[in-house]
Order: sequence, then C-alpha cells, then structure tokens
Amino acid sequence: MANFDLTRRLALNEGGKILMLVMDGLGGLPRDAGGLTELETANTPNMDRLAREGSTGLSIPVARGVAPGSGPAHLALFGYDPLVYDIGRGVLEAIGIGLEVNAGNVAVRGNFCTIDGNGIITDRRAGRISTEEGEKRVELLKGIKIDGIETQIRAGEGYRFALVLRGDGLSDQVEDTDPQATGLAPLPARASTPAGEKTAAILNQWLDAAKERLKGQEPANMVTLRGVATDPNLPKYEDVYRLKAACVAVYPMYKGVSRLVGMKTIDTDAHYSIEDEFRKVAQIWDQYDFVFCHVKYTDSRGEDGNFDAKVSIIEEVDNYLPILLDLKPDVLIITGDHSTPATYKAHSWHPVPTLLWAKTAMPGRVNGFGERDCLYGALGQFPAVDLMPLALGHANRFQKYGA
Amino acid sequence: MANFDLTRRLALNEGGKILMLVMDGLGGLPRDAGGLTELETANTPNMDRLAREGSTGLSIPVARGVAPGSGPAHLALFGYDPLVYDIGRGVLEAIGIGLEVNAGNVAVRGNFCTIDGNGIITDRRAGRISTEEGEKRVELLKGIKIDGIETQIRAGEGYRFALVLRGDGLSDQVEDTDPQATGLAPLPARASTPAGEKTAAILNQWLDAAKERLKGQEPANMVTLRGVATDPNLPKYEDVYRLKAACVAVYPMYKGVSRLVGMKTIDTDAHYSIEDEFRKVAQIWDQYDFVFCHVKYTDSRGEDGNFDAKVSIIEEVDNYLPILLDLKPDVLIITGDHSTPATYKAHSWHPVPTLLWAKTAMPGRVNGFGERDCLYGALGQFPAVDLMPLALGHANRFQKYGA
Repeated sequence: MANFDLTRRLALNEGGKILMLVMDGLGGLPRDAGGLTELETANTPNMDRLAREGSTGLSIPVARGVAPGSGPAHLALFGYDPLVYDIGRGVLEAIGIGLEVNAGNVAVRGNFCTIDGNGIITDRRAGRISTEEGEKRVELLKGIKIDGIETQIRAGEGYRFALVLRGDGLSDQVEDTDPQATGLAPLPARASTPAGEKTAAILNQWLDAAKERLKGQEPANMVTLRGVATDPNLPKYEDVYRLKAACVAVYPMYKGVSRLVGMKTIDTDAHYSIEDEFRKVAQIWDQYDFVFCHVKYTDSRGEDGNFDAKVSIIEEVDNYLPILLDLKPDVLIITGDHSTPATYKAHSWHPVPTLLWAKTAMPGRVNGFGERDCLYGALGQFPAVDLMPLALGHANRFQKYGA
Repeated sequence: MANFDLTRRLALNEGGKILMLVMDGLGGLPRDAGGLTELETANTPNMDRLAREGSTGLSIPVARGVAPGSGPAHLALFGYDPLVYDIGRGVLEAIGIGLEVNAGNVAVRGNFCTIDGNGIITDRRAGRISTEEGEKRVELLKGIKIDGIETQIRAGEGYRFALVLRGDGLSDQVEDTDPQATGLAPLPARASTPAGEKTAAILNQWLDAAKERLKGQEPANMVTLRGVATDPNLPKYEDVYRLKAACVAVYPMYKGVSRLVGMKTIDTDAHYSIEDEFRKVAQIWDQYDFVFCHVKYTDSRGEDGNFDAKVSIIEEVDNYLPILLDLKPDVLIITGDHSTPATYKAHSWHPVPTLLWAKTAMPGRVNGFGERDCLYGALGQFPAVDLMPLALGHANRFQKYGA
C-alpha cells in the first residue's frame, strides 16, 4: 500500500473514469444505545442502491485508534500514506488560498487576534471578523519588508491568513506563537531546533512590524502564527497514477491538499451549495480522468454535535446524486475522509463507510449504505491508502503484475 | 508476512501433512446483477462440507486492485512476497520445461512465428503449430554455436520454447524482440541498460543463425524472444519451512515456480485429467510433507469467458475430491492463485476464495464454499503470503514464538 513504485509500474495511460465523492467526516455513531448512526438514519435511496450493486467496506484513514486531521485523512484517500507524507498545516492553508509553496519555502498559518493595552490576548480569533475585515488588515501587512526574504501574505476565511517566506536557509523548526489561551501575550517565535533559529528571528522581525501596523485596528490588532511548514514535494497524480485529475471543493484546505498531489483545483465560490458543486463536476467531467468532489458540511454538523443536521446534509447529497450518476463514471467512490460522530463532536478514529461502484465490483450481502452494512461488504476493513489502487483496478487502468 | 527469519525460527522438523489444491483463477463474479459467481453456482457438496467444518476467507494475491500474473500469484500462495521476489517470465518458462537456470545464467521465452519474404511477421504464433512440430524446429536450432557461451534450448507447448545462456557477463537488461503485432519485422534484441549490451549482441547473433536455419520451415520460419531474465535464487521450502514438498501440475509455468521454491516436480503427462492429477497426488503422498496440486482449467475457461464451462471444471474437481480426502491430510487448503471472472475474461484483482480445513480450524457462519460465504469466514480477508504460515500453524509445524 502506498507503493508508488508499484503504481507507476502498473498504471496505464488510458482506461475508465473515476469519480471520488467525499463527504467530510461521514462516519458516525448511534445517537442512542441500540439506535442508528447518521448515515444509517438518513433516507438515501440512491446510495442504498449503489451499495447493493457495488462493493462496500470500512476504510481506516491512518491507523486503528487514530483520529486524523483533514490533511492526512485526504492524503490517505488519495493513496499517500500519511505516516510517510507528513504535511504541515501552514502549507495546506497557504496552498489552499492560492499561494505557491516551493522547495525551500516556509509557509505559516496566521490568525488575527485581539490584544489589550498590555499586549495580552483577549480574543484568539479577533471576534471572528469577516473575511472582508481580514482582507483589509492583510493589506496593511503586505508592505512589511525583511532583508533578503520575500514575503507573501494572503487572507483566508474570516480571521485567518497565510504567510509564505522565500529565501535561503529557511526551516520549519519553529514553534507556534499562539499561546492557546486568552489572558496571555502572544509567544515569540522560538526555534525548536538550532536549524530553526534564522527562521524564528525572521518571523519575530515580521511580528514586530505587524504589531506596529495593526495598532488601532481593533478587534484585529495583532496576529499569532501556527503550523510553520515547508513544501512536502509530493509525487503527483500524473506521475504515480497517470491520471489527469481535478478537485471540486469549496474550502481552501481541500483545494490545498488536492493541489499538492497535482490535481487541478477548479474555481468555486465559497457559497456553493452541494447542488452547485455537483453541477460544477458535471461541467468539467469531460476534461479529466479523475474528479474529487468534496462536501464539507457533514463534518461541520458533526462537529456542531447536530445529529439531525448531519442526517439532512447526507440526504441532500443523496438527493442531488443523480447529477453525478448521469455522468456515468466507470468507478464511483462515495466515502468520507474520517468519522465525525455528532455524539462525539470531533474527528474520530472510527473506520469510514466506503462505497465503490463499478461494473466489476463484487456485491456483498448488503441492504444499503451504512456503517453496519459496510461491515459485511466485499471490501472488508481496509487501509484508506488502498482505495486508489482499487479504483485504478476497477477502471482497467492497471496492467497485470508480472507474467 | 513473508518473514522467513520468523518461519525459519519457528519451523519444526516434523508435524502434520499439508495438501494445497489450487484451482487456477478460481475467483469469479456474478454473471448477472444479483446473481451468483461461478463457484457459488457450482454444485460442490464436498467443498461445501469442508467450508462448513473448516475456515474460509478471501486472500489478496499481491495488493488491493492489482491483478497478478501466474508466477507472482503462485509465489504469494507459497509465502513469497511477489513484490520482493520478482521473477522474470523467461526463468519460469525455462524451469517449467526442465531446463536448469543457475546463478549468472540468462533464460528467455521464445515463440515460433511466421515471416513473409520481406521478413514481416504474418502470424506471431506460427499458426499455433503442434508441440511435435515445435520440437522438430527446436532440433534445428540446437546446433547454433556462439563463442564462449553455452546455449540450451528446449521446446515447450505448441509454438513455445525456452532458451538458456550460460557464460560470463550475462544480464537480463535486454528488451523483447516480439513487436506485439503482425505487419512488422521482429525487433533486434536491444539492451535496456548498458549492462545488457553483451547479452543483446549474443542474442542477435543467435537470432541471425536461427533465421538461417528456419528458412523454408513455414509456418514456423522465425522466432521472437521475450522475458529475458536471470535466476532469482529464491530460498527453498526445506530451508524456510522445513518441508519436503512436491508439485503435481500439468503446465510448465506451475512446475517452474514450484521448482524455484525447492519443490520436487512430479512427472505428469500434458493430457492428464483432474482425476489423473489427484491419483498422482495419492501415489506420491507418503513421500512428502507438503503437496501442491494445480488445476489449470478453471483459469482457461474463465479467460474464454465461458461461465458454464468454468462451473463444470469446479464441479469436476469436487467430484474427484474424495481421492484427496482419502489421504486424510492434516491441513487441506483449497484456493485459487487469483480470480479470473468469466465476465472479465482475464486475471483480476478480486480477492480469492480460500478454504483451510484442519481439525483446529475455526468454522465461521458459512453455508458452503463461495465468494460471499468466504466474506463471513474465520480467515477474513488476508494477504495470500500469510496462507503458508497459517497452514504450518494448523499442521503443528511451528513452535511458540517466545516464552
């Protein structure tokens, strides 16, 4: 698994088309003892039929017992072992909002925060200012100059931004400056190893200038920096799978990780509905061998602890699924990147319900698409990194191994 | 898995006797939506009873999504990770027809073909000449002399032969000469890396002489060479498992791979029926700890796309199974090396139905021997390389690991 020497050796230049639909945080747990999960509760006639005709199973994102973040969870779905390919959050954030991170560059996530007259943080998210307000502050920070270093900054959603440093001798060996609590001052950037000292000094110089420029800009009058990271230089889909691939997602994180593996990230609007996303997939379908489509709100409602709302999102996906089915993908995968049970209100380690529909799929003794039915599906429980090789097999995109 | 340091450490010199019956390409798919596979369709009262009494599961030959060739698929069944032990086809072909391939030797598969007056291939398999006709041409080629090199050639089935070169500085870094299409001339042997240049030159010298000697021998008036390979020097069954092992198979490929792992290949006739093979197993049973018996025709009928004929072969195996059951093996494995669904007409990546009968086997909730029942068997889905360690455990041939 995650053996790119093998996939490179076997992958053909042509074959069937693959559509991977990811409902973020899809997996759940029963709300009540003896009850049903979110997916089992949802009325999903389309997915139930696909589950009966195709193969189902449960995927393990990283390792048993381990709840993954969004980055590693998606890397696993894309076939990249997240224990091997460890990508810093700063890189995901930066790339997700369209900044380039190249070899030797350093990327950092930034949050605007509120400090009082003594420099003490009173709100770690600056009153959750709007994206527009965030963009105004980012304009103020653009002019900060540091000798020998090129800096690039771009606003993200709300109080978030990303900062990229380009220059010689940069390193990711720097700690976060967010003290993770109010009532404390932002920390200085500190090197976690001697290799990080130059980068820490540069970031401190930048933080001093930022503090100066944000004076009077309450509630966003200071910043904290997190997730200092360097370009992971991942192998790309065209190289490892010979797939021309595209991503339809709304949130920067998912665009970011898709771009890292060489997918074209399709322009979308932050206010896209699920239907809008599916229609966008249909619009670009002819131009790609592989399309990844990401639905965020299953995870959001799970994190909210809102069981019923998560059920509704799943039903909305099922309702609009015919838009994707009309494309007649040769291989259709419907899965999650990890579980986010509404009863748990956070990412969890539970294996993720997975459906793989293809003409060559072996059906199990399954009634529909749900966690318990997936336990008896033909895919069994399997590492998420095996999903892409399975898809390539069913798409007739692998030649035989050996004679 | 495929951990020979472990098997060497644990393997005992005595214990129970193991019989491994392989129906090539056993795994299948439903012919119609909602229908049964070949194995599920077949009337197999003996295997069904064994499945209820023993353990069943599904084995993964190489990796999820990867359809294996016959060589790697059998290596996996024998416990040799095919991603580690990568054997060239030339070696399998040569050893399968009884040529020795030792360290530093090079083995090549040859096909007789038909060329026209301009040297263009008009039939890549020389009108599928008989084995007898092939043998006559091989006699003509035996006299070819190359300075400093010992050559050995032997006829295989029909239009096939194998060539072994012995001498200094030989390499497998040479491309096939078969252009894979009619209407083209055979290619010269070309080195794929500089290390292959000497061997390519020798093969070209041999090809020139072969062309000369085959003049007028239509339809087999030329040859192509494929699968240039060197001896893989595999560890042997006696060494890694302490098993004295034998192979009863009809086709050269399976004898070849068995010999590579140190099995004695029992003399068989190319026209042996399944009953003949089973009677041969009975004849030699007393002399070995482990016998591998290979049935080819399940794969052949699958590749033909003949669902009903594949069902019949499986029923024939079940019908004669009492010949093997009368031997009272302590461990009886019935499985395939890979799947060859009749609907797919080729080797596929689908996990392979596997039955392990032993007095110590844990039965599952299983009605008979079939793909879907195997999903609910006690072996689960597992890498094929784990089958030999399981068999050794059930045969009481492994000591405890640690105190």
